[in-house]
Amino acid sequence: MRISELAEASGVPVPTLKYYLREQILMPGHATSRTRADYGEEHLERIRLVRALMDSGGVGIAGVRAIVSALADPPASRHDLLGAAHDALALPGDDAGVSAEVADLLARLGWAVSAASGPARAVGAALENVRRVGIDIDHAALDRYAAAMRAVAQVDLEHVTAQTSPAAALRLVVMGNVMLDPVLVGLRRVAQEALSAATPG
Amino acid sequence: MRISELAEASGVPVPTLKYYLREQILMPGHATSRTRADYGEEHLERIRLVRALMDSGGVGIAGVRAIVSALADPPASRHDLLGAAHDALALPGDDAGVSAEVADLLARLGWAVSAASGPARAVGAALENVRRVGIDIDHAALDRYAAAMRAVAQVDLEHVTAQTSPAAALRLVVMGNVMLDPVLVGLRRVAQEALSAATPG
Repeated sequence: MRISELAEASGVPVPTLKYYLREQILMPGHATSRTRADYGEEHLERIRLVRALMDSGGVGIAGVRAIVSALADPPASRHDLLGAAHDALALPGDDAGVSAEVADLLARLGWAVSAASGPARAVGAALENVRRVGIDIDHAALDRYAAAMRAVAQVDLEHVTAQTSPAAALRLVVMGNVMLDPVLVGLRRVAQEALSAATPG
Repeated sequence: MRISELAEASGVPVPTLKYYLREQILMPGHATSRTRADYGEEHLERIRLVRALMDSGGVGIAGVRAIVSALADPPASRHDLLGAAHDALALPGDDAGVSAEVADLLARLGWAVSAASGPARAVGAALENVRRVGIDIDHAALDRYAAAMRAVAQVDLEHVTAQTSPAAALRLVVMGNVMLDPVLVGLRRVAQEALSAATPG
């Protein structure tokens, strides 16, 4: 299809599509003449990915470019693939200093992750924000939160491992993190209401 | 202290403090003359709350005003208090239509929450975004995510119930949701890395 038809099909205006092409987050179409190119299903799918990352995920243009370039040449091992996805989907505070509290937490849990990893640094920064407003979370509470998120990650990884290609696995890790975080945040509040309705106090 | 000293102590410039006063999210100081007012520890604490909501929580001015007004007259029951906090901390999509999938999930889990509640609607909207990018989550996976977030909510509610005043409990619900969501999101990714390191594939 032509770029005007791609705009129609995706709901994204032509000037925005041209911007994606210039920024190299949308691959070029197949040239049919000096001024025309043909676009297909893979372009539509890419546009859906880009919009989801930017609109729902709040990922910036640099993050989208990092994800798209990793998709073009995905790491073969699941572990490297997770690392690439986490690097591209930067969390606030993932460049903060290494937190002694998080190092301690990881050691307590026996999680084989460096406290210097991006997500671990982000947890440290987020916990510092929590303390700053005077909320006290003790070790026991933090360990229970971590155990719950480990159960979430277990479901995540089973899905990733079931994918048949590295590109599909990477796409799932990226989209699964970006798009499912709001589901989990919402479920937390629904569960608060359900538990509150079910217990006196 | 005078407003200039309040600015110094809080790190928030005087014009911004005056904006907070006009918007009635910061309570007036105690007038000491026709043009001067005295501010105390309760003002500092309020400014910390407002900054945390706006900076870390991405809460808009209307949401902050709703929270602040609920804090001035907090509901007596924990359940109404949760409702007030969830209303003030609007999630994206919490005005969406009621989703049959979420109604079904709540029935399966036996959670006594209406599928029309704000958080339940937000979950429905977030799940629709997930489907739109072609991620398939079956009932079993969704139920496991929900069970994990129930474990999170259990820790949350124990903390809320331990508070000695309705205002303290409301403050904890609000801040606990806004400030802890990033901790949980980060822990999910750290757990993905830990599990991936610990299992072959």
